[in-house]
Amino acid sequence: MYQIRTDLALETQEKMQQDHVELKGVRFLEEKVDRNLTISTVVIETENGAKTMGKPKGTYITIEAGNMDEEDEDYHREISIQLAKTIKSLIRGKKEEQSVLVVGLGNRAVTPDALGPRVVDNLFITRHIVKEYGKYAFGTDKVNRISSIVPGVMAQTGMESLEIIKGIIDETDPDLVIVVDALAARSTKRLNRTIQVTDTGINPGSGVGNHRHGINEKSLGVPVISIGIPTVVDAATIVNDTMYNLITAMGQSETLNNLGSSLGELNEAEKYELIRELLSPNLNAMFVTPKDIDESVKRLSFTISEGINIAFMGGKQLEYGK
Amino acid sequence: MYQIRTDLALETQEKMQQDHVELKGVRFLEEKVDRNLTISTVVIETENGAKTMGKPKGTYITIEAGNMDEEDEDYHREISIQLAKTIKSLIRGKKEEQSVLVVGLGNRAVTPDALGPRVVDNLFITRHIVKEYGKYAFGTDKVNRISSIVPGVMAQTGMESLEIIKGIIDETDPDLVIVVDALAARSTKRLNRTIQVTDTGINPGSGVGNHRHGINEKSLGVPVISIGIPTVVDAATIVNDTMYNLITAMGQSETLNNLGSSLGELNEAEKYELIRELLSPNLNAMFVTPKDIDESVKRLSFTISEGINIAFMGGKQLEYGK
Amino acid sequence: MYQIRTDLALETQEKMQQDHVELKGVRFLEEKVDRNLTISTVVIETENGAKTMGKPKGTYITIEAGNMDEEDEDYHREISIQLAKTIKSLIRGKKEEQSVLVVGLGNRAVTPDALGPRVVDNLFITRHIVKEYGKYAFGTDKVNRISSIVPGVMAQTGMESLEIIKGIIDETDPDLVIVVDALAARSTKRLNRTIQVTDTGINPGSGVGNHRHGINEKSLGVPVISIGIPTVVDAATIVNDTMYNLITAMGQSETLNNLGSSLGELNEAEKYELIRELLSPNLNAMFVTPKDIDESVKRLSFTISEGINIAFMGGKQLEYGK
Amino acid sequence: MYQIRTDLALETQEKMQQDHVELKGVRFLEEKVDRNLTISTVVIETENGAKTMGKPKGTYITIEAGNMDEEDEDYHREISIQLAKTIKSLIRGKKEEQSVLVVGLGNRAVTPDALGPRVVDNLFITRHIVKEYGKYAFGTDKVNRISSIVPGVMAQTGMESLEIIKGIIDETDPDLVIVVDALAARSTKRLNRTIQVTDTGINPGSGVGNHRHGINEKSLGVPVISIGIPTVVDAATIVNDTMYNLITAMGQSETLNNLGSSLGELNEAEKYELIRELLSPNLNAMFVTPKDIDESVKRLSFTISEGINIAFMGGKQLEYGK
Repeated sequence: MYQIRTDLALETQEKMQQDHVELKGVRFLEEKVDRNLTISTVVIETENGAKTMGKPKGTYITIEAGNMDEEDEDYHREISIQLAKTIKSLIRGKKEEQSVLVVGLGNRAVTPDALGPRVVDNLFITRHIVKEYGKYAFGTDKVNRISSIVPGVMAQTGMESLEIIKGIIDETDPDLVIVVDALAARSTKRLNRTIQVTDTGINPGSGVGNHRHGINEKSLGVPVISIGIPTVVDAATIVNDTMYNLITAMGQSETLNNLGSSLGELNEAEKYELIRELLSPNLNAMFVTPKDIDESVKRLSFTISEGINIAFMGGKQLEYGK
Repeated sequence: MYQIRTDLALETQEKMQQDHVELKGVRFLEEKVDRNLTISTVVIETENGAKTMGKPKGTYITIEAGNMDEEDEDYHREISIQLAKTIKSLIRGKKEEQSVLVVGLGNRAVTPDALGPRVVDNLFITRHIVKEYGKYAFGTDKVNRISSIVPGVMAQTGMESLEIIKGIIDETDPDLVIVVDALAARSTKRLNRTIQVTDTGINPGSGVGNHRHGINEKSLGVPVISIGIPTVVDAATIVNDTMYNLITAMGQSETLNNLGSSLGELNEAEKYELIRELLSPNLNAMFVTPKDIDESVKRLSFTISEGINIAFMGGKQLEYGK
Repeated sequence: MYQIRTDLALETQEKMQQDHVELKGVRFLEEKVDRNLTISTVVIETENGAKTMGKPKGTYITIEAGNMDEEDEDYHREISIQLAKTIKSLIRGKKEEQSVLVVGLGNRAVTPDALGPRVVDNLFITRHIVKEYGKYAFGTDKVNRISSIVPGVMAQTGMESLEIIKGIIDETDPDLVIVVDALAARSTKRLNRTIQVTDTGINPGSGVGNHRHGINEKSLGVPVISIGIPTVVDAATIVNDTMYNLITAMGQSETLNNLGSSLGELNEAEKYELIRELLSPNLNAMFVTPKDIDESVKRLSFTISEGINIAFMGGKQLEYGK
Repeated sequence: MYQIRTDLALETQEKMQQDHVELKGVRFLEEKVDRNLTISTVVIETENGAKTMGKPKGTYITIEAGNMDEEDEDYHREISIQLAKTIKSLIRGKKEEQSVLVVGLGNRAVTPDALGPRVVDNLFITRHIVKEYGKYAFGTDKVNRISSIVPGVMAQTGMESLEIIKGIIDETDPDLVIVVDALAARSTKRLNRTIQVTDTGINPGSGVGNHRHGINEKSLGVPVISIGIPTVVDAATIVNDTMYNLITAMGQSETLNNLGSSLGELNEAEKYELIRELLSPNLNAMFVTPKDIDESVKRLSFTISEGINIAFMGGKQLEYGK
């Protein structure tokens, strides 16, 4: 069947509702923090729910910040604080001190895929300092040990990200892995305005670079929290969706009402068949991204790294000017 | 009227033919150099031709290299040599020695727009050496003086590229300006496989970054040769075109033949109206680009810079390993 | 005569004092703002003073911030605010609104020389917005128009920075030019801890890249304020100075007191002759820089850009997360 | 005792000779390939030899290429071919097909330390292709599987490079590890003109970034070949050496012959004591590097990656334009 490419559970849930698919085993909550900040939670509770949604069981929290693509220091700080809270809410069996490995997935050389590597550039890294000087170097008796890695992409390394991360985890034994990645959305409206935080990791086919292996608690053996921002829409998706709208619109169009009846007679399968015939095969290797993606990625990577810094280092030791 | 966004004169010419528009004042030539290398020349000879084509009078030479998006050192060298010939064919009133300013347009931080800046990184720059040590530093008595500039984009500089280039030209007085820019095509098939070389410069609305002012002989006062490779398609164009195909196909579809008659009755204007209604306004600020754009831009920028090096420095002094 | 390579007027003045050279036509002021922040002002008032100091007439203000090489957000903000005040104090004949061109000198690809280009990355650029939408886009009726350029270095462009800047100024007509550059100090103690702000521009032989032409009010025709941070010491200087100390120490050493009398008999000229004989000629093309220069340049470039943003945009519209 | 900081076994050997230290358990060979290419081999055969040299037992091959800091494509290709031979000569128990992990050590953001990361950028990576499509994708039945990693530096990752590499090796099980790193020399003459290839790996205190743990066969469990080019000299070393020369010269100086006798009476220990007293403590955190280091690192990283490509992929599939 026709599969919409989106990494956002929220978009899948919306599409299901729109298509009147009954969602069993999936809970949905929405909280308006203020006019420009909405927190939605999709909890996939059963294997059946996971199957319908096409996503693993777990909690998917979405921070929608309508103006996140604009510059406003206070607003971005508010989002970072909200992100810190959201991250903490997904940590189970909290230890007093945690060893956390932050992984920046993606390709630094492709602007919309550089989110993960750029988040890592701005983190407050402490593991080596604690290891060498003790935690008293920070003037407190509880310090989380933060480490990070940018594994690169397979075309550069010849290895799966999973292989690299797994090796490092076996060697350094963190309590928690945080994976940051650029995502694909279904709608251009979501780009650079949405943060998804989950406890399900990164799963095959997701991310701008389409990971082939899951990076999750099952494959790594430690809990994984993933943080993602959609920065692209698959080119096929965008054309698909617009054409679907066209066919639907034609079925309702006043000026085309003699067509309406005929198109109305097409069922979903026939519509998809029609679209598939017309889609250029080139489009599969293409993505759609905003023209100002460099500024957005620069800004958003800072917002995420600040969120992680606040979550684990209390924000007091925030690095300056990075 | 509905305007296709393409910077390639070849695509405009093709579209005109396809729409059975009579092209007066436009000449077209095609030469197959070999199986994988075709040179097409569009010459817009009259103001009328320019108006129909929506492009200024002048010569537009297109090197189509079907495998240019792949790695093959010999093939790329062949393209560079062809590019060198093409550049030379557009230089008028050749002086024995030339002073050439190469301008790398575009935004280095946005992968598909980084072509111009990256070409400049690999040029063999000689102007300062000739100025300081004389041309005998090169062991010959004729040396072209090559200089270059990456002006940056308006969001970074607060200035039009035109203002920066014009100022530098007034100060350094080159005989010729070569402008390198990433272009927008209409079809994804052309991306990273086509080099357009023209004597018309860069004109308003062209390039990935949509220049607002012409960078051409008229605005600069010296001849301008522009070299471009399409690296993106406008998102609106891609959706537009696919939908146009859909409507056309529906008008011919066997399975939909009762629709056919009705859609066949829509004229062009009605088709465009229908499409416009359905297009998301977000799409105007979006572009479509291949997922492996980083590798392509890296490779193609080298092919272009080598072409320029061969054209002006005979290839003997080619820089190594850059 | 033996010439110490330093771009800091403060170091020249100190050396003169240490050598008991009488400084006529030079005024010196020092103000301790707090324990970690000292402002020194050297004013060279006469041509004679300029000759003795080896620097043009004008005002050289040095902000010495002992901990500037460390991370501390509040401390860096304090420095930025101090820098903003210092910049403003050097603007003559203040207009209500200014058009300011900020020039980031240096080579982005050489870490200690990347200060200028990186400062420009973080500026709040407004000229194009005011030009397109009017100053009311900022919600006020007075807005300074900020533009910027990174001219690159001669090996990349084939042109002098002066030629590029002069051309752009003729074309865009700013009221004021601010030039940011990485400097060479005489002492490693000053590296990354000192900001020099002057109204004399950048002069031949100064900067990490050793500019060959002055970039100053005389050459540009508009007032020039230069801002620099020393990030390197010339390798020859460091060896020179240590050897000078050695010879001097030997003349005073207890364990070497029978040498003392002999070395004591060498005059300054003989000491320099001795040093010159022993210096490796390679050293002239070398510089000395701290191992953690990447972190320092990242941090300091932000401190300077913030200072400029505060000076001209009041700090209200400071960009976030850059 | 006073320890000279150099990563080049050749320099240590030279210094020993110069100081008339008898080297037992160390073999030395020199071969002049042509006027501009010399291959020296230092083999440390016994534990005693290792102790005297301050370096582990093993083979250290040095390719000295007097003009390697210049641009000359043919010359650089000759060096690459020589490097390929040298690498192959150090592989023990050759298997028909090898799985090779290339590690690019160092900090990409610090120009002279970026050699390792930049070498990795230009490698021909095959492991993922062989894994997915089989070796027949290359049209041959024997293909080495090349993978690579840029681990980053401890300040960025919070982890030792050793931890990262060890983890990846345990996971991906290569037959051979090649480690590329920028080195510190004792003499500025060697900078950017020397390649050292060893079978001893990278050892504590070596490299521009001063690694704290050995990356070698003992710590990794697989053979390690290390390739390094000296790009810096420690600032303390350069001053030390020049002062040592000064003291020695004074002991022989004609114009200072009454000093001579006294300085001649100082033993080595007294000379070092004298130098140590005068050395600035700041110098320990400083390095000396050539001003044109960016061009050198760009060129040399390509020469090394080409050498590795030739050694393992026969040079046929060399990537173009990278």
